[in-house]
Amino acid sequence: MPAVYSRPERTNRLGTETAYAVSLEASQLKAKGKTIYPFHIGDLNFSTPQVVIDAAKKSLDAGKTGYCPAAGIPELRKALAQRIGGDRGIEYTMENVSVQPGGKPVIGKFLLSVVEDGEEVLYPSPGYPIYESLIDYHGGVPKAYTYIDTGSEFKIDIDQIRSLITPKTKVLIYNNPSNPMGALSSPEEMQALADLCIQHDLWVLSDEPYFDIVYDDAKFEHRSIASLPGMQDRTVILYTFSKNYAMTGWRVGAAIGPKEVIDQITKLNTNMEACTSHFLQHASVECLEKRKQTDQFLFDMLAELKDRRDLLVKLVNEVPGFSCFTPPSTFYLCVKVTKAMDMLGFKNIEDFRRSILAETGVSFCTREHFGEAQSFDTDHYVRFAYSSASQETIKTALTVLKDYMTSKTQ
Amino acid sequence: MPAVYSRPERTNRLGTETAYAVSLEASQLKAKGKTIYPFHIGDLNFSTPQVVIDAAKKSLDAGKTGYCPAAGIPELRKALAQRIGGDRGIEYTMENVSVQPGGKPVIGKFLLSVVEDGEEVLYPSPGYPIYESLIDYHGGVPKAYTYIDTGSEFKIDIDQIRSLITPKTKVLIYNNPSNPMGALSSPEEMQALADLCIQHDLWVLSDEPYFDIVYDDAKFEHRSIASLPGMQDRTVILYTFSKNYAMTGWRVGAAIGPKEVIDQITKLNTNMEACTSHFLQHASVECLEKRKQTDQFLFDMLAELKDRRDLLVKLVNEVPGFSCFTPPSTFYLCVKVTKAMDMLGFKNIEDFRRSILAETGVSFCTREHFGEAQSFDTDHYVRFAYSSASQETIKTALTVLKDYMTSKTQ
Repeated sequence: MPAVYSRPERTNRLGTETAYAVSLEASQLKAKGKTIYPFHIGDLNFSTPQVVIDAAKKSLDAGKTGYCPAAGIPELRKALAQRIGGDRGIEYTMENVSVQPGGKPVIGKFLLSVVEDGEEVLYPSPGYPIYESLIDYHGGVPKAYTYIDTGSEFKIDIDQIRSLITPKTKVLIYNNPSNPMGALSSPEEMQALADLCIQHDLWVLSDEPYFDIVYDDAKFEHRSIASLPGMQDRTVILYTFSKNYAMTGWRVGAAIGPKEVIDQITKLNTNMEACTSHFLQHASVECLEKRKQTDQFLFDMLAELKDRRDLLVKLVNEVPGFSCFTPPSTFYLCVKVTKAMDMLGFKNIEDFRRSILAETGVSFCTREHFGEAQSFDTDHYVRFAYSSASQETIKTALTVLKDYMTSKTQ
Repeated sequence: MPAVYSRPERTNRLGTETAYAVSLEASQLKAKGKTIYPFHIGDLNFSTPQVVIDAAKKSLDAGKTGYCPAAGIPELRKALAQRIGGDRGIEYTMENVSVQPGGKPVIGKFLLSVVEDGEEVLYPSPGYPIYESLIDYHGGVPKAYTYIDTGSEFKIDIDQIRSLITPKTKVLIYNNPSNPMGALSSPEEMQALADLCIQHDLWVLSDEPYFDIVYDDAKFEHRSIASLPGMQDRTVILYTFSKNYAMTGWRVGAAIGPKEVIDQITKLNTNMEACTSHFLQHASVECLEKRKQTDQFLFDMLAELKDRRDLLVKLVNEVPGFSCFTPPSTFYLCVKVTKAMDMLGFKNIEDFRRSILAETGVSFCTREHFGEAQSFDTDHYVRFAYSSASQETIKTALTVLKDYMTSKTQ
């Protein structure tokens, strides 16, 4: 190999999703015969709607197996403009849409298209770890903002964001509803963010994979920040089919926003992937258009997820040292474990996680999988994903966990 | 929109595939009722083998619709290690393979994984335009090398490469068989390149989409540079299913090379796309394993492509001012048009191309779509892709072209 393989300097700034390490640990324990209760992955144990699967097959039979335009097939760009705009009360045309191989590519391509070296990007922490990794990798300066635990909800710390803004601040990354918090902005919170963005002339990456995963009354007032006055022209929406339609493994998503930025993102498509899988795009059009079936799918999935959420919240609060409130959105539950750690004598949350996994088989992620801990963090949190755990699994797992914690505190 | 949208500085270095502009021109003329003979695109008018389509359907039915590992499913990594290694006489394991959404992502991810800012990268021009674009975009210094027209073949100008190497040279990009030249290295040429790489401690990106598209006796001596002594540990192979199996729109490929670099590339997968479409990977495994059917498909496709090539070469040489020789590989024909341009009074090759397209409907790409013209270019060339033109189309198109050129020279 050329001398010793020395990675380019920038590579040392590249992070990863350390949550995969949890998957690995869990599967190694499982291979040894341990029963594992997996709450660490945000994948879904639902099947993609049959109508979408049928559409993919039909499209394969129709020979949609050659190249297609880098920005996506016009049919899908139009369908997304109409649907994503329609759901959010925004006018978009196909010129505002660049189809992507999943939602994730939007993060890097958006940053590459608007951030100059050394400019600052605000991002949530706890949050999706790829934000920090890519801001850094692409030459931006990551500035983490956090959430406040009010005891009944998580609110974005707007004062902190205000204090972080400098003349070098270029972008706000906003993930609403949020992973891992399960938080949903109130109209007031969203407006306060919009005001700051307009005042300081910021771009917004509105990362909206969970836009449709909102429960109870919250869904009636839920909006996209792109729909607030003055925001459409400074916001790029990250859309993905992954979570709404149990299509995580399909890898189809889109960047939706001002044409000037979308054109840059499409130029990056040409350089990076050529295009997104052709026949999967035709299937995605049908997913958006056959609403009778796909809306029903989403409705049923949300009903099941809500039942899981309510069950999990109830049972988590029965575990000594664990506490949480009912989140309005996503399929994640952010659980405070400060007391549990004290009870077991752990200072380090990853030691705590590994010990619970080894002792009970209950597997979850911790705050550390969602960005570096912040100096002002006072409590410890873990994330339960209930997207791939049946109610039966939830019951069994939480009984095991409760029994274990009870045994250690007697 | 935030003030005026100013693109980041690096964005000005990002190129694109200008060949798409030819597609656009051709389709605009077609919409006006003009008969178009499309030789400008490297797509295939063959259908993906039925066995692969069936495998994709089966995999959809089996619910392979959730996330999978960032490096690809182990089955595909193993199958690729075995097959790509086996065909080339190289030992690989799955650790040497990172599955990608197409072949193209390998170019950028490889460069990001080995090139430090300011290091020099040798690349072919005429060549795939994305090389130059991404070298530049990712902070490397592009150094173009060219081919010599011997009158019966195109040879890489090894002396020129030697003269371009400096202490800052880090990478050789080597596309063999080559687009747009249709050239294939002799064993001596390949060994001379390997010697230079070893002597100067260079990395090699061996871009091999046309590895199996080799005709006549040439196929018996065709090898990968990765198989030469001392080369495996410094070479990353770009593999794609696109051209062999008429799967251009599927977007499945792989980076295959030393584990250290493959690990970096997989880390980039995690940041950029999460993973490649899950069920398409299972279909790709079957594509590699059901050899009875897929080898037959390739055999039949090559027979048809060879017939097209021979017909096209014969007819092109009957057109006044056009000349070419029989290339040993790919589905591209590089045609010298210096005389034709003289005859029609054109100095600029793009003006020539547009005029021929408007007058005859015959659509092809020119040297300018394959990197900036070089100061030492003395002749003018265009590229005919015969991958999506039937023999009937070839006959009609070349008759029209011949008649037109004859009419202009009387």
